[in-house]
Parts: sequence; structure tokens; C-alpha cells
Amino acid sequence: MHSVGSPTNIGPDAADVAIGGDDTGRRGVAADELRRHNLGAVLERLHRSGPMSRSELATATGLNRSTVADLLGVLTELGLIEQGPDTMPSGPGRPSPVVQPRPEGATVLAVELAVDSLAVATIGLGGAVSNQLRVARPRARFSPEETTQDVAKLAGPLLDSLPMDSVLAGVGVAVVGLTRRSDGFVHIAPNLGWREVPIATMLEVGLGLGVPVLAANEADLGALAEHRRGHAGVRNLIYVSGEVGIGAGVIVDDTPLLGSAGYAGEAGHTLINPEGHACRCGAVGCWEAEAGESALLERAGLDGGIAGVEEIIARAAAGDRRTIEAVGEIGRWLGLGIGNLINLFNPELVVLGGMYQRLYAFLEAAVVEAARTRTLGAPGRMAAIAPSGLGQDAPLIGAAELVLSNVIADPARVAGAGARALAGGGA
Amino acid sequence: MHSVGSPTNIGPDAADVAIGGDDTGRRGVAADELRRHNLGAVLERLHRSGPMSRSELATATGLNRSTVADLLGVLTELGLIEQGPDTMPSGPGRPSPVVQPRPEGATVLAVELAVDSLAVATIGLGGAVSNQLRVARPRARFSPEETTQDVAKLAGPLLDSLPMDSVLAGVGVAVVGLTRRSDGFVHIAPNLGWREVPIATMLEVGLGLGVPVLAANEADLGALAEHRRGHAGVRNLIYVSGEVGIGAGVIVDDTPLLGSAGYAGEAGHTLINPEGHACRCGAVGCWEAEAGESALLERAGLDGGIAGVEEIIARAAAGDRRTIEAVGEIGRWLGLGIGNLINLFNPELVVLGGMYQRLYAFLEAAVVEAARTRTLGAPGRMAAIAPSGLGQDAPLIGAAELVLSNVIADPARVAGAGARALAGGGA
Repeated sequence: MHSVGSPTNIGPDAADVAIGGDDTGRRGVAADELRRHNLGAVLERLHRSGPMSRSELATATGLNRSTVADLLGVLTELGLIEQGPDTMPSGPGRPSPVVQPRPEGATVLAVELAVDSLAVATIGLGGAVSNQLRVARPRARFSPEETTQDVAKLAGPLLDSLPMDSVLAGVGVAVVGLTRRSDGFVHIAPNLGWREVPIATMLEVGLGLGVPVLAANEADLGALAEHRRGHAGVRNLIYVSGEVGIGAGVIVDDTPLLGSAGYAGEAGHTLINPEGHACRCGAVGCWEAEAGESALLERAGLDGGIAGVEEIIARAAAGDRRTIEAVGEIGRWLGLGIGNLINLFNPELVVLGGMYQRLYAFLEAAVVEAARTRTLGAPGRMAAIAPSGLGQDAPLIGAAELVLSNVIADPARVAGAGARALAGGGA
Repeated sequence: MHSVGSPTNIGPDAADVAIGGDDTGRRGVAADELRRHNLGAVLERLHRSGPMSRSELATATGLNRSTVADLLGVLTELGLIEQGPDTMPSGPGRPSPVVQPRPEGATVLAVELAVDSLAVATIGLGGAVSNQLRVARPRARFSPEETTQDVAKLAGPLLDSLPMDSVLAGVGVAVVGLTRRSDGFVHIAPNLGWREVPIATMLEVGLGLGVPVLAANEADLGALAEHRRGHAGVRNLIYVSGEVGIGAGVIVDDTPLLGSAGYAGEAGHTLINPEGHACRCGAVGCWEAEAGESALLERAGLDGGIAGVEEIIARAAAGDRRTIEAVGEIGRWLGLGIGNLINLFNPELVVLGGMYQRLYAFLEAAVVEAARTRTLGAPGRMAAIAPSGLGQDAPLIGAAELVLSNVIADPARVAGAGARALAGGGA
């Protein structure tokens, strides 16, 4: 396989920013930007919806059939899609050729640095996971340097097994910590034992793949995955990740909420109980201090991190009274905080990930009841609560979506750099 | 003057949605949409920045000078701008003509339904307030019907005094209550004593102006005003409005946070103290129950709404110890909640409006200190806290911006309807 792409570490929303604006107004859009936008619109549709007929694409994008045919020609040349010989009937007219995304046209090495495990996967345009590895690791024992080496060791075989014509578009990294979006810098990741770690740069150098490395918070990427893959059609959703602490990823009107530097969503450190537990952050009564893993284990009379949570699931399933009460009380605090998020964000859906997804059957009643007591009528009635359908892999899938968003923002840039690298014999 | 415009009550972000997307991907953009977008980009720049030279406009919008000249020709024909005979020097080239927005080209009747007052103003493109009236009213005494009549009475003279060639683009209404954005329906406005009131429709019928009436929550519109007029250049800001309760308006990456139906920002009803005061919403320990007007008056040993707050300002200024302690304690709770918002939204700026703006000198130290104790390091260092520079009128100015956003989204639509109305002798 060939590694390609510009090493510039740009954010996920390049196209939106170009069309979006700056401090005192939107920018204008020139003709070349329009073409880029429309290429991206067609590619995004295929990436998210899978195989479609040309005429369905025209309807979905609002572009006419000849424009769509022209854009598909460009995307085919870029190797990002393939137009099959098959056709689908398309209403009264003639049958329309079927088009689909080409996973090898833009493949991502997705990495998740989780509390209790390290995961890597290769994921192509269209969302197909070609290979995936997850290894359990003791908590907070590995330096950034060791972690970089471990990622390289795990990733090697996955990358080697990709089809020869695969184009690697980038590396996406989900980090359980406060991560600056512009350069993938981890300010603090207490469960990894890290502070001030330029993890994206370290992986860029350590992996030596010659492609951009983008890193972001795992809850933010869980939200991205649920939005792009788990719950298509939901424009406003919140992903609440229960690892040791609580993180929230927020999608607002189909757009990830980043805030000024990408730190948005630190719901775990919102004050919910001034008389509550001390939090690892130094404050008292944070949401995660009341509803997080340590509060759960304490109430259940256990310790031991992930093993403890598995024990709780077993005991709850066996009907152990103290465990069931402990989970119910955690569910109550979880629901109170979810109520706060519903009042603040007016979402259609709150998705529970991490340990809350695994415990959902035992949490559900308490969560829903507590959230109900806190939400105002109109936003409360609009919001559903559900466990993550993507399960443990949501942040990993989101890490791939982070990089693929850049491909969609400017399809010619990534594939264009690929053509150069092929001529030069690789990165 | 002539009343014009389509009566369709559409949201403020029509252009963004058209370019934005739907459930499974962005829409494509056809050539006519591109032109509309670029017309809007030029108009928005002039609306927000005021008079500029053509060459400055080209630089600011990223469009070339001939495209800008063409777009300015269209906007001039639509009556939305005027190109003066004056010129500005523009670097090494020849002097460039000065262009400015034409307030009469799109004028808004802005209305604010506040807790203790009713205000109306006429505000034109470019943001100039041509006339304004505010009358004090006792709380929760006026039905929607009486309010509609009062607005009509106050608005009449303002509209009559507009220049003859003014084009009324719409009516914008700021409501101190939970308001659905799509149709300006007020679910609940406890301080007006209203429930389930279709206020936008009532004003559309009652005023009989033949223009769209858009209504939204006053804190959301305060945020819009601070973003468009008060603090240009800040992309992520939160406006915290202290009336009887607390409302928050949030701007995320230059875009108002609405949520699924426009109810986002109900920060006043987030749980902050489970052992705290009962809230008017029926729950306990809401942020506004701890930091709102009634908590302040109770701690200061006063009652009486707005008169009470004025008394508190007078006593605090005179150095009254109990009052100063009461304000400090309210400031502490206010700051704790602001810390929550900073962790959730990672903004550059939190603006305090309403009673918090009037009390700011006495609140500041406690607010800043309490917020500091709650914020994580990285987002905390990035966020400033400041009193509203627009003062009491922020929501009223935001109500005008709400309507003007629609004009900017599609400049030809409003002005085009205007031309028809002129031919037909008014609406």
C-alpha cells in the first residue's frame, strides 16, 4: 500500500469554514469552491448512505442529473467512487447506474486510546471496517512514547493487509482526555496519566506514515460516530461517555460542537451537587464524581475499575440487592445530569456510551425518571434516551469519520496528493 | 411608508440550511444559490462593518473586484445599499468607491416583551436605531391580546415617522419565555403569565403589516445582538440574561445554538444544588433558584421585583453590609453556573445581561472567583467574563438582527417582494 496525503494537521470542518465565515460576515464563494463543495456533497451522500443510483443522488443533493454525472466523473477519476454496470429503476425514466464509495480510495488508520484498552482499525470511505484489533491494558501505566510504539506495532499488520491500491488518507485518534483540536495536543488525560502531551505530533513522527494525524476527545468522536453511522437523520444529539469519568460529545444542527479550541463538552465537570464527592479535578460535586465509575464502585462496595464494572453487571443480573440499588442511585445522578443537558441543548436524542451502555438495562428506569423530573416540558418531550448502538467502538469509528470529513471537505486534495505519492513511489 | 415582504414565517438561517445539509449529507449548491450566497456575504459584511471601500469588500469576502462590483450593482438596484461618490484610497491602486448599507432598504420593527417593560424600535439595515420607545409595565398583568394592542399602539407612531421610501422587512419579537423558533409560539412565559400563546401569529394579525413576524427567546436574541453588534470577532459567546430567572443564549462558531426546536439555552433550569431552593418550574435547586432575582431579594431582606433590584443597587453603592453580602453570595452562585457553561461550551466570552449587567460592579469579584474554581484549566484560561455593552436593549437589537438575518440570507426575496408591493400600492 501507499501512504499519501498532506501532513498539514487541519481541522475537520475545512469546507464549512470556507463557506461559513469569519468575524464580521460570511465569506463569498468563488466558482472553484462551489465545485469543491458539490464534489463533497455527492461524496458525503455516498459515504453515509452507501450505494445509490445516479438519479437518487440528484434528488438527494438537489443538483441536476448532468451536474451529478459530471461530479461523479471527477470522483471516479480520483478513485473515490465506482460506478457499477448495474442499474436501478428510477421512476418513469430509464434505469439509472448504481454508484458506490470505494473504501480503498480513502482509508483511515483509526486509533483509540481508551482507559483500559488500546484499539486500532482500518476503516475506508463508506464506513467499512476492514480490520480491527483491541488489546486490554492496565490503567495509566503507559507513557506517550510506549503508547506510540504500541500503536505502531498493532497498526503494522493491519496496514500491510490492506489492498495494494489503498490510499491512506490519515490517522484519526480518539483520546480519553482534554484534547486541543487544532493540533491534537492533549492537555490532560488523567486516566492515561498524561499531561501536556503532543500526541498527534508524536504519532505522526512515530508512525512515519507521511499522512496527517488528527486527534480529538473520545466522547466528541463517539458523538460523531453516532451522528454519521448510528442514528442517521438525527440533527441534534448528545453522546454521554461513561469511562472512569463522564465526557459529552454534542452534535448541534448536524455540526460537532467544538467551542473555541475543541474543549467543549466537559459535562463531567459541571457542578451538580455542592455537598457531593470530591472530584479528581480538584473541585467538589462534579457530575462525574456523583455518577461516574468510582461512585458506582463505592456504592456497590467494590473496587477495581473495569473488572469491578463487569462484576457489577454480573451481580445485577443475578439480582443482588445492594448492587441493584447502587446502580439505581448512579442512574438517578446520571439522569439528573442528562436533564441538564436536555434543557441546555434541546436535542432529539441522548446516547449513552461506555460503561453506561453496558449497564443500560439496569440503569434505564432510574435515568429516565430522573431526567424527566429535571426537564422543561417542551424540550423534555422531544428528547429520547438510548444506549449506543455502536457499543465500545463508537469512538474508534468516530476517529475514522474525523479524517474522512477532511476527505469529503476537499476530495481532490487528498486524492491529488495520492497521485503524486504514487508517482514518487510512496511517501 | 410601505409594508412589504412575504408573510411566510421562516427561520433565521435559511441560507445556512440550504448550503448546510440534511440527514445524510450536505446539499449541493446550484449556480443561483451561489449568487444568493455571495449577495448575502457582501450585504452581511456591509451590515456588520458599515461603510467600506469596494476593494476592502473584495478582500473581506475573498471575491474578486469584478464579482464584487457586479454584486454591488444588484444590491444597489434592490435598494439595499448605496455607492457613494466618495472614494477611499486603496493601497497602490486607484481610489475605491465607498459603499454603505441603506437602512430604509430593509427596516425592522423590533419588539421586546420583557418582564417589567414593553419596548419597540425601528432598526434598519446597518443596525441604526431610528426610533425607540420603552414603557414600564407591571409584571404578568397583560394578556396576549392586550399586549398585541399595546404593541400596535406604540409601533404606530414609529412606523409613521419612517422615511416614505422605507421597506419594512419584518417584525422581530424578543420574548422572556420558552419560544418555538419555527412559528414564534410561546410554550411558557411565567413572568408574563402566559402559556401556549401563538404570539407571532397574533402580532401578524393584530399589527396587520403584511410582513413576517419572527419571535424568539430574549436571551437567545441578546446573544445574537452581542455577537453581531457588541463583540465583533468573538465566534463563541454565551449571553447570560438575568431577569427574574436566568436564560442563556449561546453562539457556537458564529452560529446561534437553537437545538431541535429553538429551546436550547435553558441554563436557568439546570440542577446546581439538590439541597437548594424550590424553583418556579417545580424542580429544586435550579441555577435560577440559587442565583436569580428572588434569591437575591430574599438574601437582601427585600421584596418587590425591579424596584427591589434598584434598591439593592442603591444600598450596595452606599456600602450596606447585608446587601453587599447578599450580592456576593448571588455572584458566587452565578459564577458556579458560569463555570459549568465554560466547561460545556468552551467559549471565548461570557456576557452578563439584564440585572447582572446593572449589578456587575458589585458581582464581579465573586463571579470571577467562583467560575475560576469550577473551570478546567485550558477552557478556563480562554474564557473572559464581561457585562453587556448593549445594556437593557440587547434583546431588542437582537430581535432586529433576527429579521435582518433573513434579508441577508436572500437579499432579492425581501426587496423583490417590496417592488411588487410598491406597484400594488402597499401590502
